Amino acid sequence: MTEHFSTIVIGAGSGGMTVAIGLAGLGRKVALIEGHHVGGDCTNVGCVPSKTLIHLAKNFKPGMNPDDIVKEVTRKRDALRDKETEVVQHMDNLTFIQGMAKFTAPKTLSVTHNGVSRELTADNIVIATGARPRMIDIPGLPPEMVLTNESLFDITNAPKHLVIVGAGVIALEMAFAFQKLGTKVTMFALDRRPLMTSIPEASEAIQAELDKRGITLYCGTIAKTCDVSTHSLILQSGEEEIVLSGVDKVLVAVGRVRNLDSLGLEQAGVKTDPRLGILVNSFGETNVKGVYAIGDVTPTSAFTHSANAQGRRVVQRIALPYLPIAKKEPLFPNATFSDPEVAAVGLTEKQLAEYCHPGIIKRIRVDFKTHADRGYTDGVENGFIIVDAVRLTGQILHATIVGPRASEMISFFTLAMSQKISLYKIYRLVYPYPTYSSGILKVADFFMRETLPNLGREIAAYLKYRFAKPKSN
Amino acid sequence: MTEHFSTIVIGAGSGGMTVAIGLAGLGRKVALIEGHHVGGDCTNVGCVPSKTLIHLAKNFKPGMNPDDIVKEVTRKRDALRDKETEVVQHMDNLTFIQGMAKFTAPKTLSVTHNGVSRELTADNIVIATGARPRMIDIPGLPPEMVLTNESLFDITNAPKHLVIVGAGVIALEMAFAFQKLGTKVTMFALDRRPLMTSIPEASEAIQAELDKRGITLYCGTIAKTCDVSTHSLILQSGEEEIVLSGVDKVLVAVGRVRNLDSLGLEQAGVKTDPRLGILVNSFGETNVKGVYAIGDVTPTSAFTHSANAQGRRVVQRIALPYLPIAKKEPLFPNATFSDPEVAAVGLTEKQLAEYCHPGIIKRIRVDFKTHADRGYTDGVENGFIIVDAVRLTGQILHATIVGPRASEMISFFTLAMSQKISLYKIYRLVYPYPTYSSGILKVADFFMRETLPNLGREIAAYLKYRFAKPKSN
Repeated sequence: MTEHFSTIVIGAGSGGMTVAIGLAGLGRKVALIEGHHVGGDCTNVGCVPSKTLIHLAKNFKPGMNPDDIVKEVTRKRDALRDKETEVVQHMDNLTFIQGMAKFTAPKTLSVTHNGVSRELTADNIVIATGARPRMIDIPGLPPEMVLTNESLFDITNAPKHLVIVGAGVIALEMAFAFQKLGTKVTMFALDRRPLMTSIPEASEAIQAELDKRGITLYCGTIAKTCDVSTHSLILQSGEEEIVLSGVDKVLVAVGRVRNLDSLGLEQAGVKTDPRLGILVNSFGETNVKGVYAIGDVTPTSAFTHSANAQGRRVVQRIALPYLPIAKKEPLFPNATFSDPEVAAVGLTEKQLAEYCHPGIIKRIRVDFKTHADRGYTDGVENGFIIVDAVRLTGQILHATIVGPRASEMISFFTLAMSQKISLYKIYRLVYPYPTYSSGILKVADFFMRETLPNLGREIAAYLKYRFAKPKSN
Repeated sequence: MTEHFSTIVIGAGSGGMTVAIGLAGLGRKVALIEGHHVGGDCTNVGCVPSKTLIHLAKNFKPGMNPDDIVKEVTRKRDALRDKETEVVQHMDNLTFIQGMAKFTAPKTLSVTHNGVSRELTADNIVIATGARPRMIDIPGLPPEMVLTNESLFDITNAPKHLVIVGAGVIALEMAFAFQKLGTKVTMFALDRRPLMTSIPEASEAIQAELDKRGITLYCGTIAKTCDVSTHSLILQSGEEEIVLSGVDKVLVAVGRVRNLDSLGLEQAGVKTDPRLGILVNSFGETNVKGVYAIGDVTPTSAFTHSANAQGRRVVQRIALPYLPIAKKEPLFPNATFSDPEVAAVGLTEKQLAEYCHPGIIKRIRVDFKTHADRGYTDGVENGFIIVDAVRLTGQILHATIVGPRASEMISFFTLAMSQKISLYKIYRLVYPYPTYSSGILKVADFFMRETLPNLGREIAAYLKYRFAKPKSN
């Protein structure tokens, strides 16, 4: 017996839920299939518990019990999961199905739960199965000492000495949070610097903050072995051997692996790339018409907000095709909730180097400590706004903010860039005093001071480099 | 002997310094006259020490000594004051003059210091003398128990029981900060609700947070007398008498009085209004050509950032008259650094009622607790974004944000409103998850959900009310 749906969504993470709830709300008959917990990574093992932990850790005071904090994180996570499960189980037009889905044909799935299989067909299928932590092998390390983001928020005791493998977003967020709970935190990574996906200036700021808080990060370092009898981890950094002792937990945060293996994508004829995942056009559609992919399984998006944005575009494409929809994907900002936060939007350093001659770019840096009174009142030592703009025109190509409220401030730049609002116009705005945002005014001010008194030079450089090839210089 | 300058600025507060440093930097011969401390209210008795206190209070932990906090506030304030004094005393083209200035003719000032007077003349004179706290008389209250924002940041001990008169910006900021230091805080005011300058929804949120923290606010209440022998303050609220006992300090924060009396404005022929202060056009120029006024002495601006913005316009008007300058003053956002923060931009409720028929306005409210996961993870109970937009078009007329990062988020709306970016365009942006800013997306989402499925109704209402008179209904 085959059931037919207008749309089947595989994976009830935030991207999948956006599509399923969105389409069901518009009256489409939708099936939502989930192998594990409703809410996906974000609710269960990602954004929600990690930000709850970050918030509680920030307000951790002497006399509190860190174990209570980690338990409260689990409690709040479970409460949200229950609420979301309730929503998908009781929504009109939405059939929630627990089980693992596998393509048997381009528009046909077999869903298995507790050994029982059923067959489903649909006009549209949306793949939103996400990703899981990449594991590494450390000889001698017993499984009970290993944590990933998938097990981290089920612990009932705050570790005494937490070793974190990796120096990316998850690794840094957890390092700053657990340090505040009184946990000794040591990090190591193969990377040359923390937060390799950011500009080097952001890494420098984060490194300075790690140092200040006594969190040691060994870069260019791998694990050799673990001596469980002494709870020691032996690392190798070039010729040097480093022994970390008294380690009770090791959090592995060295990247993510897309959940594609068990989907039977070959039966559907969906094209994948070993490095990039499922290949999609800007509307999330794969090479197979009516089969979409969003979120972690695609090349462009590894954030909840980008998965949601892709999901909204898929909803519009499927249910409201007559409404105008931008051909290009929107700008995806990113944010790391370390302390200070790091947020960015626009071209990466690599993209800037690929698309622009360096002579056309003006980089402006404003440090909160010296150029924003709020940085002074709040004692911010490592925080800044860096903007790369086209010289003369003031068009913004990239912005990175490091600071206590960077994740909120970045949306100003997302709006400015999306609407092509130049630094000249940004200079005319008034920003409340004293805020970090008044640093945005300084950025515009610095740009004007470098441009207006040297208009001849700036015009010449603009004309010279405007169409110059990136590598001609 | 008369000295002549291109421009004389009276008052070295943030507005005056913006003009003086700006013009001196452009090569003009400038005199800057100050009767008290360089830095004005902002550096000495306003934004800087208050935000330092707010920051330190937020991070106050059991075991710390609150007296150390208030002393640290004074230390940081003094350090910034010294730095700013250094700047104005050693800048090229800038002559810093300590003394009290008084007009003797439209472009002539007499400046007196320690009984010695000198005469100065200038092509342009900028009045930036600011304001001082309004005082009230409470019978029996000894002067040593009275504080204003001018004496508050010189105290060396945190009060045990601080009574605050007033329920506006300064009163609320200090109430939330001192409560965190362990001070018992009681407030009373004639106002019907806290933060009367905001929309009532913001007052409700602030009232709820005051209640949560055990800060009692008596509205519609005046002080009758103080019994100094028992350190009691006796209040009158309608028929009821309220006795506050064990009071050690009373902070008076009931508004501000413009510093105009000793300026000799009648000698200059500068027009003033008893309620509005010095009357100026949108470029800050008074009825006397070449005589400008900015900041607290003018009708439109009572914030450091608006004084600065006015100052920048005056600099441009005097030194760069050939550069284009918008005829209208820019939008002035405002921010109150209470906990949560309150920030707003655009038309006030009164202006909305004056300029728009209620039928043309759609009010959207998004609560962080229920509509933003960051509100959930961070346990925000009273926080929201409220936007008033023109129905159908989605043009934003006003936004108020209450929340932990409202003062930074408001600049997004300042930009959107200044550039006339509608909620339709704001809907297309991607906001980092989980942030409070994702509530902005919800605002746009709610607007679309109310508009798109009811287009006929919305178009009809838009056409009907677009040019309708505000009071026709």
